[in-house]
Amino acid sequence: MSQRQTQIDIANTVLFVLEIDKLKGVLRKVRPVGENRYENTAEHSWQIAVFALSLAKALRLSVDVNRVVCMLLIHDIGEIDAGDKFVFAETGWEERKAAELKAVERIFGVAPDKAAEFLLDLWKEFDAGNSAEARFAKAIDRSMPVFLNLKNRGGSWLENGVSYERVVGRVRPEIENGCPELWNYLDRQLKAGRARGFFAIPKAQDAAQPDKL
Amino acid sequence: MSQRQTQIDIANTVLFVLEIDKLKGVLRKVRPVGENRYENTAEHSWQIAVFALSLAKALRLSVDVNRVVCMLLIHDIGEIDAGDKFVFAETGWEERKAAELKAVERIFGVAPDKAAEFLLDLWKEFDAGNSAEARFAKAIDRSMPVFLNLKNRGGSWLENGVSYERVVGRVRPEIENGCPELWNYLDRQLKAGRARGFFAIPKAQDAAQPDKL
Repeated sequence: MSQRQTQIDIANTVLFVLEIDKLKGVLRKVRPVGENRYENTAEHSWQIAVFALSLAKALRLSVDVNRVVCMLLIHDIGEIDAGDKFVFAETGWEERKAAELKAVERIFGVAPDKAAEFLLDLWKEFDAGNSAEARFAKAIDRSMPVFLNLKNRGGSWLENGVSYERVVGRVRPEIENGCPELWNYLDRQLKAGRARGFFAIPKAQDAAQPDKL
Repeated sequence: MSQRQTQIDIANTVLFVLEIDKLKGVLRKVRPVGENRYENTAEHSWQIAVFALSLAKALRLSVDVNRVVCMLLIHDIGEIDAGDKFVFAETGWEERKAAELKAVERIFGVAPDKAAEFLLDLWKEFDAGNSAEARFAKAIDRSMPVFLNLKNRGGSWLENGVSYERVVGRVRPEIENGCPELWNYLDRQLKAGRARGFFAIPKAQDAAQPDKL
């Protein structure tokens, strides 16, 4: 590569890294432990990457954990244009998917082609959820806010009127699919949390159709 | 591994991940672009991991970028016990190193042994700075706040009375050592920033001894 091209590629990589700085300002619905503010998507992405790395090493999982880590670092970057979507929202998921794809095409497109293609492939792999790596990544992503809310004695579930049934209905499929051992553990923690009053009281229609989410 | 041991390992990994949640509350001296607050070390760690990944792919560098990414994700975890140290502080670096090692031994020690050993090895590799991966990681870590301050028209340099000479003296060796192409680029950006008044006016003794830091 010519020296001139190298300098252009560095300039565009820096532009990209300054563009994704905006993820530090995208707020989620969960609070860090002991902080009186919502967490942002940048710090969330960091935490789940370390979680995936640690869990894969601890359990000696056979997934390509490096790929999982990179996937988790960039999977939410579309929120810079599309905003965070509360996981318990019940409508608009298709429009949301299209908006996120458009967003990552724009944002990754700021980086040099060789980086942009790599990142977009990773993002699409996560989004499709077909590989063992993508499934494990989704399990980790889904479970982290649950552990934070459990640690916060109900946290945003109580703030937003979310019942035990809705949480289980929403998070169980992806966690069980991507890391069954983790679901085993979390299942018991969720039941213990229910006994301690960490969830909102279910509405009648939720109780009747626990899987509708 | 027995099912019982797996569940114990998951429980300890979750304890570890909730322990490092505290890094979201460790504040640095640089502000995210367009935010009126200091960045925290968790979101910083995320950003430099993505920076390293993108730059290595863009330039087709021969370093093991996965190892660099993991290193960057965990290299600052000691700040949970030891706090952030402003990079332009002039004393106390030896005590600081010892405090950080003690901190990561405690914090990684919360995770299951197989994860803890992996993380501690990565941390020590970064700290020693001998491998190509550790040197590249240090170059990325050093340069990120410089790019943020340049984007913020001087940012924390002006707030803290830091001169151009001090910044160059402090960041050049590690950046040039770990990624000379990046230093080439940054050198020109720093000079342009100086021309635009992004630095504090140097004190006489700084100007006379530009490399003393």
